[in-house]
Amino acid sequence: MTTPRRVTVVLFEGFELLDVFGPVELLSMLPDLVSVELAGPATGPVRSSQGTEVVATRAYPWATDPAADDDADPRESPDIVLVPGGQGTRRLVEDADFLGGLAAWAGRARVVTSVCTGSGVLAAAGLLDGYRATSNKLSFGWASGNGTSVEWVARARWVEDRDRWTSSGVAAGMDMTAALVARLFGQEAADRATTEAELDVHTDPTWDPFARVHGLAG
Amino acid sequence: MTTPRRVTVVLFEGFELLDVFGPVELLSMLPDLVSVELAGPATGPVRSSQGTEVVATRAYPWATDPAADDDADPRESPDIVLVPGGQGTRRLVEDADFLGGLAAWAGRARVVTSVCTGSGVLAAAGLLDGYRATSNKLSFGWASGNGTSVEWVARARWVEDRDRWTSSGVAAGMDMTAALVARLFGQEAADRATTEAELDVHTDPTWDPFARVHGLAG
Repeated sequence: MTTPRRVTVVLFEGFELLDVFGPVELLSMLPDLVSVELAGPATGPVRSSQGTEVVATRAYPWATDPAADDDADPRESPDIVLVPGGQGTRRLVEDADFLGGLAAWAGRARVVTSVCTGSGVLAAAGLLDGYRATSNKLSFGWASGNGTSVEWVARARWVEDRDRWTSSGVAAGMDMTAALVARLFGQEAADRATTEAELDVHTDPTWDPFARVHGLAG
Repeated sequence: MTTPRRVTVVLFEGFELLDVFGPVELLSMLPDLVSVELAGPATGPVRSSQGTEVVATRAYPWATDPAADDDADPRESPDIVLVPGGQGTRRLVEDADFLGGLAAWAGRARVVTSVCTGSGVLAAAGLLDGYRATSNKLSFGWASGNGTSVEWVARARWVEDRDRWTSSGVAAGMDMTAALVARLFGQEAADRATTEAELDVHTDPTWDPFARVHGLAG
């Protein structure tokens, strides 16, 4: 029997809607296998890049009251972390408090994932040092300027490198999520999620016509 | 010069996240051409099928104070309406007040669209009578039981019939939206939105492997 997994999505002001809700839609098709929680700066509405506000169900685990006994709550140990992209990433990579908290917390996760420019945030937090990673193609120059020893891959729909999964722009997050579900729970589970969502996924991580569109190595 | 268009998404308790945020993501790539608003039972959070709450920016236009002078606000005349699917549709098709309000309001729209089981709601409101339409394939039997003179199309990614556009399940809403953008603003605008979102869209409305998966005519 498979142990259920928990995905914590890190929301922030200026997150990209589809970076979050593509993966969340697929994961939510498998309530027997995975649960999803949305963490924000505080419990309550978080404004997306598009203006739509989405309600975070909890505050960032690393930002909770330091007087609280974290060890008493097993939920504080992250399982799978997902960091989306969006305009807000430009501000986050300059936010030392955020990056320090994310690094300390997500560094203990079993799997750390990102969609789109979310990999720029992971890199800025040092969470991709020594890893291969990709990012959004339109903002690849910006994203790949973060981190000190990241091996950036310009042509990739997503990159899986041990416990780090990073995807290309926006819609690529759904392909990466389907591949992650297949890795964690088997292909049947991935097929179940994508069929229910009527989603035609790309299963080849090297498929990436958008690298060429944006003049990146291909 | 193209006149900007306005899309009103009809949220309700139990709406499907990706039915909304796939189309909204693409439309939001074109702020010069289209604006998006989210209408709910009231301004404020609306709970999705997946549990995530999303903040409606306005109450249903048809449910506003009847003493108010609707004609004074040009925004009250709908332009493009989008009705998503989700578990909540099962309840909506039994809600005579909702259906009556939606029918009177959306009946004045220039274009009425739906994603997934949202077409069951449009049909129940009488908004698809005399039209060809499709719906989610897993729930096709349920959706197509609504309406009195709808010509249901079992094998279709989406169906365009004059001022009614209906799509198949969940992810099909993104393909329909790209096609709608191309129809309204030209192919260049659709390409711009899908390239920015790194989305590989299906442009053939008859492409529908999910009809066969679910044993529908194909």
